[in-house]
Order: sequence, then structure tokens, then C-alpha cells
Amino acid sequence: MKKLLVIYAVLLSAFMFYVYQVHFKETTASPWEMRGLQGEITENYVMVTFQSGMDYWKSSLKGFEDAAKALNVSVEYRGAAQYDLEEQITVLEQVIAKRPTGIALSAIDPDGLTDTINKAINSGIPVVLFDSGAPESKAYSFLGTNNYSAGVQAAHEMAILLEEKGDVAVITHLNQLNHQERTTGFETTIQEEYPNMNVVAVRDGQGDRLHSRQVTHEIMEQYPNLAGIFASEANGGVGVGEAVRLEKKLDDIRIISFDTDKGTLEMVEEGIISATLAQGTWNMGYWSLISLFHLHHELTEPQVLKTRDLAPLPLYVDTGITIVTKENVESYFAK
Amino acid sequence: MKKLLVIYAVLLSAFMFYVYQVHFKETTASPWEMRGLQGEITENYVMVTFQSGMDYWKSSLKGFEDAAKALNVSVEYRGAAQYDLEEQITVLEQVIAKRPTGIALSAIDPDGLTDTINKAINSGIPVVLFDSGAPESKAYSFLGTNNYSAGVQAAHEMAILLEEKGDVAVITHLNQLNHQERTTGFETTIQEEYPNMNVVAVRDGQGDRLHSRQVTHEIMEQYPNLAGIFASEANGGVGVGEAVRLEKKLDDIRIISFDTDKGTLEMVEEGIISATLAQGTWNMGYWSLISLFHLHHELTEPQVLKTRDLAPLPLYVDTGITIVTKENVESYFAK
Repeated sequence: MKKLLVIYAVLLSAFMFYVYQVHFKETTASPWEMRGLQGEITENYVMVTFQSGMDYWKSSLKGFEDAAKALNVSVEYRGAAQYDLEEQITVLEQVIAKRPTGIALSAIDPDGLTDTINKAINSGIPVVLFDSGAPESKAYSFLGTNNYSAGVQAAHEMAILLEEKGDVAVITHLNQLNHQERTTGFETTIQEEYPNMNVVAVRDGQGDRLHSRQVTHEIMEQYPNLAGIFASEANGGVGVGEAVRLEKKLDDIRIISFDTDKGTLEMVEEGIISATLAQGTWNMGYWSLISLFHLHHELTEPQVLKTRDLAPLPLYVDTGITIVTKENVESYFAK
Repeated sequence: MKKLLVIYAVLLSAFMFYVYQVHFKETTASPWEMRGLQGEITENYVMVTFQSGMDYWKSSLKGFEDAAKALNVSVEYRGAAQYDLEEQITVLEQVIAKRPTGIALSAIDPDGLTDTINKAINSGIPVVLFDSGAPESKAYSFLGTNNYSAGVQAAHEMAILLEEKGDVAVITHLNQLNHQERTTGFETTIQEEYPNMNVVAVRDGQGDRLHSRQVTHEIMEQYPNLAGIFASEANGGVGVGEAVRLEKKLDDIRIISFDTDKGTLEMVEEGIISATLAQGTWNMGYWSLISLFHLHHELTEPQVLKTRDLAPLPLYVDTGITIVTKENVESYFAK
């Protein structure tokens, strides 16, 4: 009987010790060690966009959500319903008032949200920008497409399609910086790397399908030997496709477009558009949350925290471009 | 006695159930959910450099190790002892032969390692590049300083020091691309944003202290009103500092240098060099490991895996620059 009591006591203390050990480990170890990178489900990170109903944001939000699952934290999606700066400022103010753990923002224009972003940061809420930046703000990082590089990739793709020879044109949106950068990357690469190719025309399609179609008709008349057209945005790309199809020049002219809206993907599937450039939108959302998580948990260089310097995170993350062609277009419809 | 045996049995089974539960959870949940981002200690990620003994790598390795702790995986450090391409190829071949989980490589030159990198990737070992890239290789990502942006930041810092007026010069290393980019970023920014400042001279210091000192003497003679010098690399910066001190011009000429070797930091502390640009080396190592971990565990966009496209990760991560001045120099000595 006494012996049993001793066994009983030993077993009980072993059990208690075990329980203690497991829980001790779980509650006192920082996320920094032993537990992997994981947060609390009470942490609430918010993604804020403009024209929040647009299909374009779906994949970024999916990336944001996937990262939240991986890190065991919560996310919310907010945005201005319209393409309207004042509305986005109001939405951002409302989000800040609720004191979220962090904010990933796509800014409707480069300057208009700067004060509101800085307000969030000054009150201790980490902010990163994705897709469209606000370079003068105090946001910690920008995650988006390098538009110049995207133009470079479009040029290489065009060179492959045309076996490195022939006249090409660009239909772009001249007023917008990102389209200027795409055009410059394309032109520079053709000029410097493909001596048997020429960029014979760069025209403004104004981001409009009908206008781009009209301009394409004009170019085809002016340059009957035209072998390729790069459309730097999606509406223009569809217009270009329509014009080339209408003039029955699909066998003569290769088209490269941008983004993966339904109209563009359908033309890729039909072989009207040879390739389109898909932006790394999932990456934008995924790495935005990973970045905010690191800021919140101060998982940055010990040095940086100590000196309160300004660059705890990578300043810029180029989220990359994927070339979509007939071969892989199917999986993009699902998005 | 019977009663005690029953308690004993109940307790034992509760204990077993508890143990089962805890371990079951730990071994079957994927890293993707519930456990946070964490790997196995048997995963072995290797950092490979050249001139592996250099102080410069310490902070990158620290970042690599810090990320390994956070993710519960193992790391190793390897490198060529000399500044020698053949030796680095040999080291990389040896690392590949051991089939590590992933490799973070800083390439001694942009082309020489391309075949070996591709060999690793073709055999299924993920590779990312940090600090010095190999743009034609199949490596998934490059993490390093944007040298053009660094030059831009140096220009803004110089403008602050000189209250936006005066003549400035650049001592650089004309043969190297990264130094050309730093110089262009500096010059362009001064020209475009500071109408009362002029870049009067850009000279080659050949990455050498004595040569840079000599060139600085010449510039000071030629431009007696010189108000600032930007040295785009560390040896040159120390040479510039020596020349300016020797001619007792420390009150007239502000110096901005690059990197944080001991000689540079000492001159910052003494006030000879007003500011130096610290590269985000910890970030390079930390985010290299985070990237390799994501590749190994296929924690990338589901879409990308399905279509076997080429950009599962951000293509380029700008690891940022921190301005080091007298105020925060202390903490950099510790590194």
C-alpha cells in the first residue's frame, strides 16, 4: 500500500512536471524561438484599397489571407468603393481609429494619402504600401511591380516571338508614370539588345479600348510591315487585338499585353494576344502581411531597433511578373 | 487498494492521452496552418560567400542565423577564403554535393557562377543570391542594395549638410557597376533637385585609400570652394578624410562615405566623415533564409506551383540603406 502511494506520488509529480514543461515552453518562449513565426489570432491586420470591388485585388487579398493562416493571425479587408481620393482617406481614417495591428495600403495616388499614412505611423500602427506607393510617406516598405523591368521582360518576350527581327510599336497610357516606365523599359531593351528590331511608333491609347483600337488601325496603315505591338495596359490590349483581328493581320502581328482581366485572357486563349504580363499580386498581399508581422513583433535587426533608424524592413520588394501564354492561361481564369 | 488501482489507471490513461494529443498536434499539422511558419531542425540551409573571413559578411550571417532560430531550422556558413572565382566554384560544388535544403550565395562576379548555380537549381536545390547577384542565372531572387537609390540618399543627405547650396565632388571606383550606379544616383539627384548645388568633379579613386587621398588633394586645389565630397566606397572614404584633415579643411568640407568598416566608423566618431551609408546586410541574410524556407516548403502562390511559372518569390528585394552619423555610430562598432 505504501509502495503504491509512492508510485502514485512519483507519477503525479512526473505528470505535473510534464504539464508544466509543455505550457511553460508555450507561454514564455517568444515567437522568435522554438515556436516558429506565429502570432495571436487577436492580431488584426487590415488591407485597404480603392475601387475595392475590382477583380484585380482578389489575388492580393488571397495572398494576405494565406499569410495570415500561416502566421495564425486575423485579417480584414476595407476599401473605398469608388475611384475617389477623399473616400479612401475617410476609409483609412476609420481603419486607424480602430487601432489595427497593421495596415497594408494601395494608394489611389502618390501624394494624397501621405498625411493620413504618417498619422497612422506616428500613432504606432505599422503601414506598408503595395501595388501603388506613396513615396514621400513614412510607410516602411513598398511591395509592387517594377514597371521598367516589366517593360524589359515584354521586350525579351517580343524578341522571342519575332525571332529577334522586325518593326514593333507600343500603345501606352502616356499620362501615367507606371506606363511611361513600362514603355521606356521596352524601348531601351529593343534598342540596346536587338539590332534587327525597331520601335517605329509609341502612341497614346489613353487607357481606353476604343481609342487604342483606332490608334492601332492608324499604325497598321502607316507601317504595313509592323510585326509586333506591346500594349502597356489591359484595355488598350483588347483594343489592339480587335483592330488586328478586324484587318485580318493576326498571322502577321504578334501582340503582348498587360494584366489578366477576363477580356485579355480570352484573347490569349484564342491566340489573338500571344502573351500577357501577370503582376505578382498574390506576392504583394502575402509579403505585405509577412512584413507587417515583422514590424509588429519587432522581428527586425536588433541594431535597427536600438538606434531607431528608419529602415527595419527591405525598402522595396519587386513582386515580379509572370508571362501568361496559351499554354498556361487556363489556370488564370480561375483566379 | 482496488480504488487506488482505478485512480492509478485513470491517471495513467489521462497522461497517455495528454502526451498523445500534444505530440499528435506537433507531428501532423502542416507548417502552413496552426503551427506558424516553422521547419525541422534537420533542414540545413547554407550561406556561401567569397573572402569568407571579411567582417562585411558577419551581419548577413547574423541575419541568416536569426531567421533560422525563428524558423527552427539549421544553417551553415561556407566560403572561398580568397577573392578567387575558381575557389568559390569549388566551394559551391562541394556544398551542392551534400544536398543542402537551400543555398544563399553572394557571387564574386556576375557571370562566373551562373552554370554552377543552374546546376544546383536543376537538381532541385533552391538558390537565392544576396549582396552580389548573377542576373543571368536561374536563382529565384536577389536581395541587396539598390545602388542607384543609395546614391540618391547620399545626395539628399549632402543637401541637408550643406543647406542645399555649394559645389560637391564624387570619388568613386569607375570600373565597377555598383559604383557607377551610386555615382549616377548622386549626380542626377543633385542636378534635378538642388538648383544651388553643383557636382563639379567625378574622379576615380580606384577603390584605394592612397589613390583617393591623392585625387582629393588635387580636387581641393582645383576647386577651392568645394563644400562636400561623396566617396562611393569605404577605402576611398578614409583617403578623402585623411586629405581633408591634412589640409585643415574639416570645417569647410563635409564628407559622406559608404559602408561601416572600422576605419570609416572611427572617422564618423571623430567628426571627419559626417555620415556613412550602412547597407542592409542583416536584412540580406535574414530575408534570404525566409525566402529559401518558402521555396523549400512551397509556401508560394498556389497558382505559380500549378503552372510551374518562374516567379514564385519576389524577384528583387531592396534591402535598404541606413544613414550612420555621430549620433548612432556607437552601435555600429558592436557589429
